[in-house]
Parts: sequence; structure tokens; C-alpha cells
Amino acid sequence: MRTEGGIPPHDGMSAGPRKRFVKKRRPVSAADLAKEIRTGSRLALAKGITLLESRSPEDRKDSQELLLGLLPDSGNSVRIGITGVPGAGKSTFIESFGLMLAEAGHKVAVLAIDPSSTVTGGSILGDKTRMEELSRHPNAFIRPSPSSGTLGGVHRKTRETMLLCEAAGYDVILIETVGVGQSETAVRGMADFFLLLVLTGAGDELQGVKKGIMELADGIIVHKADGDNVTPAKRTAREYKQFLRMLQPATPGWQTTVHPVSSFAGTGLEDVWETILGFRDSMSVSGEWDKRRREQLKAWFRQSIEDRLIESFYASEGRKNEVERLEGKILDGRLTVTAAVEELFRG
Amino acid sequence: MRTEGGIPPHDGMSAGPRKRFVKKRRPVSAADLAKEIRTGSRLALAKGITLLESRSPEDRKDSQELLLGLLPDSGNSVRIGITGVPGAGKSTFIESFGLMLAEAGHKVAVLAIDPSSTVTGGSILGDKTRMEELSRHPNAFIRPSPSSGTLGGVHRKTRETMLLCEAAGYDVILIETVGVGQSETAVRGMADFFLLLVLTGAGDELQGVKKGIMELADGIIVHKADGDNVTPAKRTAREYKQFLRMLQPATPGWQTTVHPVSSFAGTGLEDVWETILGFRDSMSVSGEWDKRRREQLKAWFRQSIEDRLIESFYASEGRKNEVERLEGKILDGRLTVTAAVEELFRG
Repeated sequence: MRTEGGIPPHDGMSAGPRKRFVKKRRPVSAADLAKEIRTGSRLALAKGITLLESRSPEDRKDSQELLLGLLPDSGNSVRIGITGVPGAGKSTFIESFGLMLAEAGHKVAVLAIDPSSTVTGGSILGDKTRMEELSRHPNAFIRPSPSSGTLGGVHRKTRETMLLCEAAGYDVILIETVGVGQSETAVRGMADFFLLLVLTGAGDELQGVKKGIMELADGIIVHKADGDNVTPAKRTAREYKQFLRMLQPATPGWQTTVHPVSSFAGTGLEDVWETILGFRDSMSVSGEWDKRRREQLKAWFRQSIEDRLIESFYASEGRKNEVERLEGKILDGRLTVTAAVEELFRG
Repeated sequence: MRTEGGIPPHDGMSAGPRKRFVKKRRPVSAADLAKEIRTGSRLALAKGITLLESRSPEDRKDSQELLLGLLPDSGNSVRIGITGVPGAGKSTFIESFGLMLAEAGHKVAVLAIDPSSTVTGGSILGDKTRMEELSRHPNAFIRPSPSSGTLGGVHRKTRETMLLCEAAGYDVILIETVGVGQSETAVRGMADFFLLLVLTGAGDELQGVKKGIMELADGIIVHKADGDNVTPAKRTAREYKQFLRMLQPATPGWQTTVHPVSSFAGTGLEDVWETILGFRDSMSVSGEWDKRRREQLKAWFRQSIEDRLIESFYASEGRKNEVERLEGKILDGRLTVTAAVEELFRG
């Protein structure tokens, strides 16, 4: 494989050994791997996810076969999306919340959507110092955010990883938003229940809450409600409750809840979990639970089609330059938008 | 022209006469029409807009030439977007507000974005009983929403009509949202200042305000603040002000304002206009005014490209059926989203 211009690929050094490894595991068929994943083997699950993330056409084919085989076993979990204002302590919350559930016998998977990783190539969840205790728990499975690819690609990998985890018996999926941009919408689009972590001191303005995020939340956690902060956190929770009465709920028929929580002291965590179970029960009765999942699936499909169209359109360097050239002329008042679009699609 | 399946087009009856009319006005070149529009001729302006709305390839070419010629004369207006909760009395407000400005010597154009018209083929603003007095004023120009076409098409026509009105000397453009759906976002994307009309009785919940709309507003009008309603309207205004302090402003550096207004009694209208002028002045100084307009232009271009891609993709009946067939298989758990997308783009 060669990139344009003859420059060797970035990971050229490792191509050899990796290929051998791939060859070694090739004899394991998708059906066999699916069987192993169903038994709950963490090794098989990790293998399956690696397959999903591979960009080789052959692996992609295998991974779709694997996924299709596991679809009937997926879906039996509570999918909890988690976002927060900067400094809200998301990792600490996930560690404590996840440990509480894992100790109670739940199987907990932690995934992440990180659109910023498409730019930096980095993976914040890959940082090994985070969620140290949870990551060692036999009932927990932590998967770093896919570290590269387009936003659509990262989104796809996280969704498919979630399905694989469910097939492996994980009944609580925590999907964390990482980085900036559209990760909240992406996570909302794959979660049953969406949690927003905030800090005390809402007062005059909801400190750091991005525009429109409040409307996505089914539950709000006022975090770090410990020590001297207990009383302010309770006051902030009241303020949020008042504020939320003015908004339409994120889920029809559900009034967004507010919870003071201390991950440090372990207080409020059970309350959050019971609320989520209550949500699942009443939404299952009303039919909203299944309806949302079906709508999410449809939206994922429609969005994937649009992403694919837009990606292929901008795939060529020449096309990108052409769009920028036309944009410059539009901004200078030398071309109309309509004429620019017609020029693009005629060419 | 014949539609697929040999069914004559809906407007087949009028095709003949219309064609003759088009032929008669053909000798007027785009340059001549531009000249007439610049003089402020309402007839020429109406002709220009009809040209913009025409679907014939020749007219489209002419209309783009016309628009390009008028671009240097456009932009000198305050573009005010107006939306409201159901029953808020948008038309009554536009009538009173527009009349006040027209009487003061401003030239006022009223346009509308109505995505629902793409479905119904109807045009709410076309209803002649609305804004009767304003429509007869020599300084006012009211244009019904383009009555058909895709959302992207309606959006384009309204934006281009706005530019033509500006070139004809209209210095206040009121762009009304009509119908449901994405019209607010579309209008926000072409307005300098965005007004939201609400009613008294916000109290426990912002009555009828759609999710995320509050965050788009630069100014909120508590309408029908007359008679017994004056005191409740003032109280509602205070409640909104308090609520708004919790939100990030729609425009950086601008705190969203709240105005009790009675279109019936004519109170509060001047206050709204002075606020908009103050907004323009301070945003011009900060550079936010021009920055927003440039960003709107860029976003319009990028969105037009995406709309075009998606429209062409779904243009064929066969493609639409194929997508629905695959969607059905996905919802039944017999196909993965990724495999469905690959199948679509392979075929």
C-alpha cells in the first residue's frame, strides 16, 4: 500500500507483524467469534471490536457478518448517555457509578464518542489513569473511543461496539461524550436515558452548559455535592428544577429529574440508578422506550446515507479547492449561491 | 412536458397562456430589469421575483444574471426574523409594526418561509385578508411564501427575494416563519435580529415555545399586552427576563431583551424598533453584524450543496423504495445499518 505521492504510510513499520496476527486469527470465522462473544468472553469481545474498527475491506465484511449474527442477542441493556460541563468530574462519576453497579452484579460497559479524536488522532479515554478501579473489575469493560476516522465513522463504531457488548451480556452501557462539538447529539441519538453533569453555582447563568444541551437531558446531576458543597448543591438542584419546569421535557411523558451526587462520598448514586429504572419501566409501559429505539435506528440509517453522500462529495482535493474558490467569490459579492451550486454540479 | 406514467402535469391548463406571457416579457434583459428594480419600481420587483421562482432553465439563468447584477445594491437593510407561539398574533404584530415603520418613511418588505407549503402546496401569507392595511401602503411590499418546491428551494427563493427587495430600496425586511418544522432555523439563518412572540401566562412552562427556539431569540415580545392583560404581560416579561439570564445569548455580546407589546393599542412597538437599532449599532461596532452575515452566506452555500446531494440521491422512485426496503430489514434486525449503506452505494 502506498499513499499518494509515494510517501510510505504512517504505520508502515507495524504493517508486517499486524498482518501476521490477522492471518493467525483469520481461521476463526465470524460465526465462531459470535459464539465466543455470546459466552461473555472478554477476549472475544475485544477481538470483535478490533474487527469492527478495522479499515480493511475483508475485515469490514467479516465484521458485518459478525454483527448480523449477534443482532438478535443485542438490545437487552439500559443505554445511558453521559455528558457534563467542563470540570464536572465525568470520569469520577462513571467510576463510582459503574463500580456500584458492577458490585451489584451488573455487567457494565463504558464507551465514548469523541469527534475531536478525528482531528487530534488522540483518545482521551485511552488515558490509563482514568477509571482505574472500574477497569480492573471483572464485571466492567472499558473501551477507549475509536481513535481515528470521520465523525460518521466514530459514531458507527461506537454504536456497533454497543451492540457487541450487549450480545456479550453487558446490561448497562455508559456512553460518554468526550471532546467538543456534536458529541452530545450523537450520544443522545444512541442512548435511552441521557444524563447531564453540572456543578453548583448555577445562579445567574447555567455555568458552562452548552446551548441546547439542557433540553436533551432526562436527568441532571449536581456533582461534587460533598463537604461544604452539600448545601449549595441542594440549592442549585432546586434552581435547576425550577428552570426545568419552563422547558419541554427531553422525553415525552417524563419530567427531567435533578440529583445532588457525590462520587467521592458515594451519596446519590443509588437514587440516580433507581430513577433510571423507573424511567425504563414507565417508558416501556407507554411504548416510548421501543419507539425511541426504532426512531434512533432509522435516524442512524438516514444520517449514514447523508454522511456518505457528503463525504464522497468532498473526498477529492480538487472538489474541496473548487468549493473554497467559489465560496470566496460569493463572499466578495461576485457570485450568487445558486449559480455557484449550479457550477459545482455541472462540472 | 409529461410526468412519469403519462399523467398530465397539474397546471397543464395554464401552461399555454403563461408561456405567451413569458415570451412577451422576454425582450426585457436582466440588465434592464435590474435597472428598473433599482429605481424602486414595484412592478419590476414583482417581475424579478416571479423570475426567481420560475423553474424553467432559461428563467433560472436570467434570474441569476439579474441577482448578480443587483448584489452590489443589496445588503442595506435590517433583516428581522419573526416567529411566535400558536395564536401569538404574528400577522397583527407585523401589520402594526410594519405600518409604524412605513409611516415613518421606511420601506418595509414582508417575506415568509413556509416549509409546510412544500407539502400542502398552499400559501398562508397568500391569504388576502391578512395585513390588509399594510399591503395597501405605498412603502410596503408583501410577498407570499413561495408556494411549492423543496425546503431548500423555498429557502433559496426567500433569501434571493430578500436581496432583490434590498436592491429596490427596502431598508426593513420582515421575514416571518410560517407553518411547522425547520422554518425557525431557516429564518434565523437569514436574519440579523430574531424576534419571538409569546403570550402571557408563561408561569410554570413557557406556553407553546418549541424546544430550542428561545435560544435563537435576540428579542422576545409578550404580545397582546392590552386591557386586563397589561399587568399579567408585565409579570410574564419579568419571568422571561429571569429565565433568559440562565441561557447563553443568541448573539455574543447581546442580552436578549423582553418587550410587552400591544399591536391593538400600538404600545411598545417603538421600544422594539429602538432596541433593534441599538442592536445594529453595537453589533456593527463589535464587528458581529458583518461576521454573522458572512457566516450566514457561507452556511447557506454549504447547506445548498448538501441539500442538492441529498435531493439528487432520493430523486428516483426506485432509490426511495430501495431505502425503505432496507430500512424495513434494519428495523426487523435482519440487516445492519453499515451493510445497508454499503449495499445502497454499491448498487
